[in-house]
Amino acid sequence: MSRFLTVIPVKEAVAIAEKLAVRPQKIERVPAEQSAGRVLAQDVTADRDIPGFNRSVVDGYAVRAGDTAGAGESIPALLRSAGRIAMGNDKKDLHVGTGECVYIPTGGVLPDGADAVVMLEYSEEAGDTVLVKRPVSHGENVLQRNEDFTSGEVVFRRGRRLSPQDAGVLAACGCAAVAVAGKPIVGIISTGNELVPANVVPEPGQVRDANGPMLAAWLGGYGCVPRLYGIVKDERSAFEAVIERAVLECDVVILSGGSSKDDRDMTAAVIASKGEVLVHGIAIAPGKPTIIGRIDNKPVFGLPGHPASAYVVLIAIVRPLLDALLGQEVPLLRTVNATLSENVPSQRGREEYVRVMVKDGIATPLFGKSGLLNTLVKSDGLIRIPAGYEGLEKGCGVEVILW
Amino acid sequence: MSRFLTVIPVKEAVAIAEKLAVRPQKIERVPAEQSAGRVLAQDVTADRDIPGFNRSVVDGYAVRAGDTAGAGESIPALLRSAGRIAMGNDKKDLHVGTGECVYIPTGGVLPDGADAVVMLEYSEEAGDTVLVKRPVSHGENVLQRNEDFTSGEVVFRRGRRLSPQDAGVLAACGCAAVAVAGKPIVGIISTGNELVPANVVPEPGQVRDANGPMLAAWLGGYGCVPRLYGIVKDERSAFEAVIERAVLECDVVILSGGSSKDDRDMTAAVIASKGEVLVHGIAIAPGKPTIIGRIDNKPVFGLPGHPASAYVVLIAIVRPLLDALLGQEVPLLRTVNATLSENVPSQRGREEYVRVMVKDGIATPLFGKSGLLNTLVKSDGLIRIPAGYEGLEKGCGVEVILW
Repeated sequence: MSRFLTVIPVKEAVAIAEKLAVRPQKIERVPAEQSAGRVLAQDVTADRDIPGFNRSVVDGYAVRAGDTAGAGESIPALLRSAGRIAMGNDKKDLHVGTGECVYIPTGGVLPDGADAVVMLEYSEEAGDTVLVKRPVSHGENVLQRNEDFTSGEVVFRRGRRLSPQDAGVLAACGCAAVAVAGKPIVGIISTGNELVPANVVPEPGQVRDANGPMLAAWLGGYGCVPRLYGIVKDERSAFEAVIERAVLECDVVILSGGSSKDDRDMTAAVIASKGEVLVHGIAIAPGKPTIIGRIDNKPVFGLPGHPASAYVVLIAIVRPLLDALLGQEVPLLRTVNATLSENVPSQRGREEYVRVMVKDGIATPLFGKSGLLNTLVKSDGLIRIPAGYEGLEKGCGVEVILW
Repeated sequence: MSRFLTVIPVKEAVAIAEKLAVRPQKIERVPAEQSAGRVLAQDVTADRDIPGFNRSVVDGYAVRAGDTAGAGESIPALLRSAGRIAMGNDKKDLHVGTGECVYIPTGGVLPDGADAVVMLEYSEEAGDTVLVKRPVSHGENVLQRNEDFTSGEVVFRRGRRLSPQDAGVLAACGCAAVAVAGKPIVGIISTGNELVPANVVPEPGQVRDANGPMLAAWLGGYGCVPRLYGIVKDERSAFEAVIERAVLECDVVILSGGSSKDDRDMTAAVIASKGEVLVHGIAIAPGKPTIIGRIDNKPVFGLPGHPASAYVVLIAIVRPLLDALLGQEVPLLRTVNATLSENVPSQRGREEYVRVMVKDGIATPLFGKSGLLNTLVKSDGLIRIPAGYEGLEKGCGVEVILW
């Protein structure tokens, strides 16, 4: 092991990580109502026009728009009531002729002859006659056949991360269930001689493992199945046994915690002995001592131990690999534009990620050591300063990657 | 039933809905790593200082800062190596005296006598001597004891919606498991004679139920357990049987789908016969014909049938009740500030919610009938036009409630 790291640019590291998504994609079928947050593994096509017929969007009277021209409160149009539309039936027998109208409920099928609907509020029944007190124009209050989607139209492409609204569209298109990417199983091994689990009272010199639960919580929310393998101390044989099991059981393995040079070196040595170390050191701050490797054709990451560093690397480097495994076309990064509240210095030659709070369009940097949890908790997201910059100036527009 | 609705302001409707959260809060314990997205049902206190000792944040040499004053590449400070700190141990026996240094790994306990750490990169070992080539100031590269959290400090208050980062803090504070609000069970009954489920090919005049799956998907993502009761047609006895069962099995019941006056009237009549209708009509657009009721002391909502209307009412009226049930102090609304791309007219006297796309800080309204799904899917969120406004002008700043 060399004494210092040979760093590579973030872009290169991301490309190397993405290329590790080599296994055939796992696919499963889920009901539409459970599809939100999942990534489509198929194109979705409308199997018919939606809606399949001209529909009223109000309760009222189906009319010929021309018959209502000039109608008003004082001189209403008088139309002959020619029947009632019932919900869920295609009343083919009803026809609206000149001077006629038909009662129609919201969602009802517009009868032949009619081309608009007068709202109930602007009408009055008087026996067989309906008084219309406001004119309607052609198509008014009508949802046209296929106005939403057209039969055969590709509604969603494979690779889309589905929203709750999308679940409604799936149902409308006849997809009661849909093929989505299976959830990648991500093993998390915490390393570091100083670590104890949350339920243990730390002895002097010890700290509780915060990264394991934090990474697991993020991964769960991102559509993965996190699997915690607990804490491994610096006994090499125990470490090797756990990493072997994790590689066997998971799609991706994340080693987290060891931030000292000795820990990193052991992590790299173990990965090298079982597989291959592809990257050891990235020009990113925080997060420089990141390791990317491969064992049995599965990606293995060594994340830095500082919580903020681990979190930044998770989002900047690991996430693109997860997207690739999921077949997700567009990253699920939520971003907002904001104005920077003060100067943020950076070091040329490395990509810098700075935690920020965002309020009322102002991004306020939270400077703080990457070993702290509290700035991570207070922040809303990150701004990225590209490697070629010496910093960003107060007042400039920034894109905030929301957590 | 009156022919037209008596509408009340949104604020009043929200207050009435919130007051329906009368049952004692359900509480469960979840592991820290599964707590993200859940609402805390307890305050969380740091059980000790975090970190519990002065920690190095780099690999290097623990020194007295004063000993490095004036050190440089050409004239390094020469310090006597007095030992090595091992990870996870509180090396009480090591002491850094004047002119001395001790090797310390990242995360190691700063030994007595030392007040700063020189990074490995700026040092060189020569036998028992270490050459320091850059001065450090007091406290440099050290995380002070309790710099993150102080023993006894309330770290999170009850009612907080937890983030993945928070899961890390919970672990650090010794909360391997934490008390959170139980997930409200929300029953969804789709009503409407025209509705068929997603797996059925609609006959002429029929449409597939999109709202049921859409509402379920949103509720699942919001931390509820949605339970779909299928589609009820206009047979009153069947409707009554389903609503009775749903009220028995759920914490909240949502009736969705019937948007015609007849459907609404039946929904209101059934709620009234089993309990009480509290609201029938809200000054909101879209979503005016909303019903809020109570059966057996449980909230029952009648949402309008148009998908966009149902979704707006879900977020504007139902969500605050869910927050109250969850004990959530701050709404989980993600909002961004944007500039409106064009004039948006509105009608005085009702609160209007307009779907918008947001890109590069510009909010573009998506005008479209509330019966359409596609504008709902294309939109990123909603802007709210208060009841007293006749619209918003192009170029004005708006707050977008992201879906």
